[in-house]
Amino acid sequence: MGKVSYPSGYYVRFSPPSPVVLVTCISRDGRANIITIGMYMPISFDPPLLAIGVSPKRYSHSLIEETGEFVVNVPGRDLVDAAVLCGSVSGRVVDKFKEAKLTAIPASKVKPPLIAECIAHFECRVYDKFTAGDHTIFIGEVVAVSIEEKAVKENVLDVTKTQPISHRGRYYFTPSLFYEAKK
Amino acid sequence: MGKVSYPSGYYVRFSPPSPVVLVTCISRDGRANIITIGMYMPISFDPPLLAIGVSPKRYSHSLIEETGEFVVNVPGRDLVDAAVLCGSVSGRVVDKFKEAKLTAIPASKVKPPLIAECIAHFECRVYDKFTAGDHTIFIGEVVAVSIEEKAVKENVLDVTKTQPISHRGRYYFTPSLFYEAKK
Repeated sequence: MGKVSYPSGYYVRFSPPSPVVLVTCISRDGRANIITIGMYMPISFDPPLLAIGVSPKRYSHSLIEETGEFVVNVPGRDLVDAAVLCGSVSGRVVDKFKEAKLTAIPASKVKPPLIAECIAHFECRVYDKFTAGDHTIFIGEVVAVSIEEKAVKENVLDVTKTQPISHRGRYYFTPSLFYEAKK
Repeated sequence: MGKVSYPSGYYVRFSPPSPVVLVTCISRDGRANIITIGMYMPISFDPPLLAIGVSPKRYSHSLIEETGEFVVNVPGRDLVDAAVLCGSVSGRVVDKFKEAKLTAIPASKVKPPLIAECIAHFECRVYDKFTAGDHTIFIGEVVAVSIEEKAVKENVLDVTKTQPISHRGRYYFTPSLFYEAKK
């Protein structure tokens, strides 16, 4: 098969593209921030829990610990520049909403705002947190869900239409449908 | 923006497609199994750790607990039928290698086999495990990495060529490149 070995650390580079989401959080005194997250996965159906990975070095890590709340916002490909920007500057020094020309709108059940330009929003309260090497896994209990009306088809995200994004390194992708399993 | 609310549990259906990997594990008496996993993410660079989510109801959950080892195998789109199959039958009653026409080959550092037909292989020892609602997060320390020689471009997975897969519900996708961030 022509398989070759690489150092263990290369597993990240050789992983399938990871979904990219924009997580919003807020300081106790009401200053909102955005962090681009490439470590996101649904993890429990009942209760509805999701997992994100955040480095303790990041400003957003302290905000999420401070308030115990965050929102997962799902961007479409039109927001790729904003995603790259929000993943490369720190909210300690920059107002990312302003810098990335994104609009903060109130969430329904948590303090961090939603990003109006995103497709979908999962409002979360921190349910648990775990340390895994150089990152923290925050487990968010989803307490409210909202989505662009036109983005839903047969009760699922219409992926072809909305074009959510994934990345591997500096390459960004949208998903192309190639297979439909039987119901 | 035409946003509408849904019950919290809908967050899974509205998430971006999740990468699909085939995880191999083995019983103490040497019987190998495959489980299709839609909850996978890299989580730590140093040490190199990855996270997978597995329901305690699954046969593979007991195997991973039993031996403390598993392998993440990255399938291409040619293996989508095998991925659907290995996600819908139980290794308690079926030999999935045989059923899915996949070839088990020895790993270099762990007991569970690699799936020869897959693009890349991340051999793992269980580093930690956490309960998150109805799933267990197994944290695997990556102890060996191998990959098809032709699948690597500039030290990263050549996604366009290899076509790893993701899914949302019963819809399966390959990634289409649309953006390259500056180095």
